[in-house]
Amino acid sequence: MITTDLMVKMVLDRWNGSITNFNKHLHSLTDEQLEKEVAPGKNRGVYLLGHLIAVHDDMLILLGMGEKLFPELHQPFIKEADKVATETPSVAALRVMWEQQNNLLQSNFDRMKSEDWFEKHTAVTQEEFLKEPQRNKLNIIITRTSHLQYHLGQMVLLH
Amino acid sequence: MITTDLMVKMVLDRWNGSITNFNKHLHSLTDEQLEKEVAPGKNRGVYLLGHLIAVHDDMLILLGMGEKLFPELHQPFIKEADKVATETPSVAALRVMWEQQNNLLQSNFDRMKSEDWFEKHTAVTQEEFLKEPQRNKLNIIITRTSHLQYHLGQMVLLH
Repeated sequence: MITTDLMVKMVLDRWNGSITNFNKHLHSLTDEQLEKEVAPGKNRGVYLLGHLIAVHDDMLILLGMGEKLFPELHQPFIKEADKVATETPSVAALRVMWEQQNNLLQSNFDRMKSEDWFEKHTAVTQEEFLKEPQRNKLNIIITRTSHLQYHLGQMVLLH
Repeated sequence: MITTDLMVKMVLDRWNGSITNFNKHLHSLTDEQLEKEVAPGKNRGVYLLGHLIAVHDDMLILLGMGEKLFPELHQPFIKEADKVATETPSVAALRVMWEQQNNLLQSNFDRMKSEDWFEKHTAVTQEEFLKEPQRNKLNIIITRTSHLQYHLGQMVLLH
């Protein structure tokens, strides 16, 4: 018999596996390696890291888990392309932010009941949600896992 | 109220969106571009394409949808690294195989009822499945979407 718990476990297991994988690579790459472009003329590893922190910060809003931890990263790592911003945090600082953010997301996720994941996320109206119930909180995890995997595939090229 | 249909839709929407995105890039890249490495010393686009076809061929087996379409791709695109195999299909041939495979997967997916997706996949035993019901057919779509996104992130670097 299919339970809500099972569905949530399937999605969160993939998110957690993806974060674990990303961390494995992040820890095995030096700050110098992360300063390099993943391919000639493409984004640097440090930009990808900042971009992921900025995008995951938005998850806190979308999931109704409070305010962003690092709103200052939105401009340089989402609005602007790599190498546009002149003053951005160091790789070392971004590593700490990433760790802090993952811990906060994890502790918030741990407090969710399975049914909570099927509530609407904050960027959809009640009216829209009635027509499109797939626009729920669990779907945010599905799409952000996809996004993380996309950039993980690029990050590994720095090895 | 949370239905099995809703969960299946969420997962398949992400798979379909990922395939659509991959195709958009695949069609916008020339054969010459696909012959290039995504980054210096890394896999070529043509290897990633062959690798994805070989991996998705395994899905037909895992989902109990019959035999592989292109078993001959397993050795050069999964067992062996890029540039090891001397005789592999042309980019043009792989493009046709990819299209043919996506059509077959799609038509098979269209025939599935929502409950079918929660049956065990063929690589897990009935005993294991009783303990780990998350090892079902829908989970194969979740993990393969993750895998596709990982390599899509690399493929786009060829632009």
